[in-house]
Amino acid sequence: MKNKFIPNVELIESQIEYLSNLIDKNKPPYTRRPFTKEYSRSRKWLKEKMIENGLEVHIDAASNLIGVRKGINPNLPPIMIGSHTDSVVGGGRFDGIIGVLAGLEIARQLSENNIKLEHTLFIVDFTAEEASEFGISTIGSRGMIGNLTDQILERKNIEGHTLREGLMSLGGNPDLIMNARKKPGDIHLYLELHIEQGPVLEQTGYDLGVVTGIVGIRRLKVFVKGQANHAGTTPMNMRTDALTAASEVILAIEKLANKHYEKQMVGTVGRLFVKPNGSNIVPGEVVFDFELRSLSEVALDEAVSIVKNKINNIASRRNISIKTEQLSVTESIKIKDEIIDGINESCNQIGSSLKLPSGAGHDANQMAKIAPVGMIFVPSKKGISHSSDEWTDYELVVKGIHAMWNALFYFDRNLDN
Amino acid sequence: MKNKFIPNVELIESQIEYLSNLIDKNKPPYTRRPFTKEYSRSRKWLKEKMIENGLEVHIDAASNLIGVRKGINPNLPPIMIGSHTDSVVGGGRFDGIIGVLAGLEIARQLSENNIKLEHTLFIVDFTAEEASEFGISTIGSRGMIGNLTDQILERKNIEGHTLREGLMSLGGNPDLIMNARKKPGDIHLYLELHIEQGPVLEQTGYDLGVVTGIVGIRRLKVFVKGQANHAGTTPMNMRTDALTAASEVILAIEKLANKHYEKQMVGTVGRLFVKPNGSNIVPGEVVFDFELRSLSEVALDEAVSIVKNKINNIASRRNISIKTEQLSVTESIKIKDEIIDGINESCNQIGSSLKLPSGAGHDANQMAKIAPVGMIFVPSKKGISHSSDEWTDYELVVKGIHAMWNALFYFDRNLDN
Repeated sequence: MKNKFIPNVELIESQIEYLSNLIDKNKPPYTRRPFTKEYSRSRKWLKEKMIENGLEVHIDAASNLIGVRKGINPNLPPIMIGSHTDSVVGGGRFDGIIGVLAGLEIARQLSENNIKLEHTLFIVDFTAEEASEFGISTIGSRGMIGNLTDQILERKNIEGHTLREGLMSLGGNPDLIMNARKKPGDIHLYLELHIEQGPVLEQTGYDLGVVTGIVGIRRLKVFVKGQANHAGTTPMNMRTDALTAASEVILAIEKLANKHYEKQMVGTVGRLFVKPNGSNIVPGEVVFDFELRSLSEVALDEAVSIVKNKINNIASRRNISIKTEQLSVTESIKIKDEIIDGINESCNQIGSSLKLPSGAGHDANQMAKIAPVGMIFVPSKKGISHSSDEWTDYELVVKGIHAMWNALFYFDRNLDN
Repeated sequence: MKNKFIPNVELIESQIEYLSNLIDKNKPPYTRRPFTKEYSRSRKWLKEKMIENGLEVHIDAASNLIGVRKGINPNLPPIMIGSHTDSVVGGGRFDGIIGVLAGLEIARQLSENNIKLEHTLFIVDFTAEEASEFGISTIGSRGMIGNLTDQILERKNIEGHTLREGLMSLGGNPDLIMNARKKPGDIHLYLELHIEQGPVLEQTGYDLGVVTGIVGIRRLKVFVKGQANHAGTTPMNMRTDALTAASEVILAIEKLANKHYEKQMVGTVGRLFVKPNGSNIVPGEVVFDFELRSLSEVALDEAVSIVKNKINNIASRRNISIKTEQLSVTESIKIKDEIIDGINESCNQIGSSLKLPSGAGHDANQMAKIAPVGMIFVPSKKGISHSSDEWTDYELVVKGIHAMWNALFYFDRNLDN
């Protein structure tokens, strides 16, 4: 069979290890922040590899690094495989990186075996996917679809450089972003291989994850304002304790997410501050953030409204002030059944696979605004990510690339748009 | 009637206002920390007033300022009226101060009317009652009963001076503390007038409080250790969330204290830290302090054991580690019924009174180890203390002094020991 993928674990291992040395040695391993010299070095290497693997390389207006392999039919919109090579501080060697290396490896095997696809293939290293110093993430994919306003481009990092300058330093041309933006119909399909960043695949024993969608997020800030009092001299019935009131809200959020488990909802209070925070003072103020995530927009909006009602009940029963402020709304991405089925089929030829939602955001969130998207997950050891302990066995990474190869050939011929 | 107390609100007002100017102007008002020059100035003034009011003044081994008025019967042990004139940083104008001024005013009226009591009367300004830089409170009253070890005397403050040096700078002689210590039988009765520092008298509309005892305290630290995880990618059933577990414990403590309300128990979690405290990270660790206070030692020990059981249940159900560490045990002080009745009688001649426990500690805690003690409370506006907003109407302060006068005459003749 002509389109057979030949797994090369040693090559992928050596590439991951090579990139894991192009890091900022003054920060916890394995840090490669965007707009740094380490980032430029890894991009330089990546560009060379793309050229070696037969791709025509260019940098787009939003400074995304793009390798192109022409397809047989020039009238068809391209298929795109992408992810990112920047990391959070102290981030890992796999997050984003394996998605770009998947594209590179697929290009290599296509080139070496002289295989032509119907569609043109774009391999993309998106600029600055992780939360950046400019207060925004997925910068490159936002830019590719024209979702970077002038206001955002003028934001400054701690050294006083604007995002516009950052993109230009990588070879981008921010003035052209709006004109060059990809619009609906411009891309046949966007595919991304990524580590799961959660414990589900490992704990359930599957090799591969077929992503069913990317969860929507509602983030709120909660302000509980009672009265700070002497912990010894204030009887229980004369207190308005902000921390006990907050505790009730926290448990209500947990209970609600548990109850909506069939909708794969999660609810988290991750950040909380107590004032004045003295061991013998009844807490006068508690401020905390909470977030709810789910694939179902309806379930999310319902859940926010249930939490707000619950908060009003708690506030009224306890005679305490509890106010909420919406921090952000991220809409969920639903992946088409047709794509889920095709990816599932592609995965099952390689190993065992589980359908699951993505609880984290990706460049696919942006691309989904203009194109069909599909994602494949490989397991994260102990569910750890954004950490130097992030790990996925190389064999599993290669299985993921192999599944992507299968999906590419499948969707090159089968996808209704 | 010869023993009639003549209320002099203007005099007491002027004395409180005078002392409220002898403060550290570089700190929030009205700060008078022990071992400072402001403290020495207020003591100098107090000593002069004591002498004016016919008292023989000396400084004891623990540097307590003591004014003595001889009684008719030299074989009887003295009655002592005392409190303190130091404050916390940003503390108020009444806490401690009115107890010392009560003694001074009583001495003045005894002297001016040439009234002799059976017992000798000691008016005491105890050294450093508030939590000090030496990590200990009620220093003077501890010293008076020999409860200051050499180890404590060698503790250093931030400038590197020992407590021993501090006591010497005020005229004390720490080497003599053990020899000079007061023992059971040495004092007929210790009386203290103090602000309530809580909201009960004001909210229930009583002028005076008859203290039934000083609550015991159990302080514990709680360590909740789960697993920090990505808030998006970790399903609810794969989390060990330290904050939701802590929230359950916090509510259990509140519920328990509410349930034991007839035992006048209070339970407080005042201080809590979350790690890593990121809005999109399931909390991996929570550390918090809790305290329980009650007059009943039995109820306290029972409550600690109930909380520990509850913690074990929560930890086991949630599959999370929760450990407790005992921080301190302060035993409660029970005031004798005979004294409560006598003070109640003395108060009722002046105004309305309510029997209530003291939720805060006082010099009376130390004195109770060697002598019968009695305490009178006056209302704290809004229950506020340890704040520049601390306030008690001068008329009520004088009512408290008047009640103390009555109690003094009553116990000078009636008290079984």
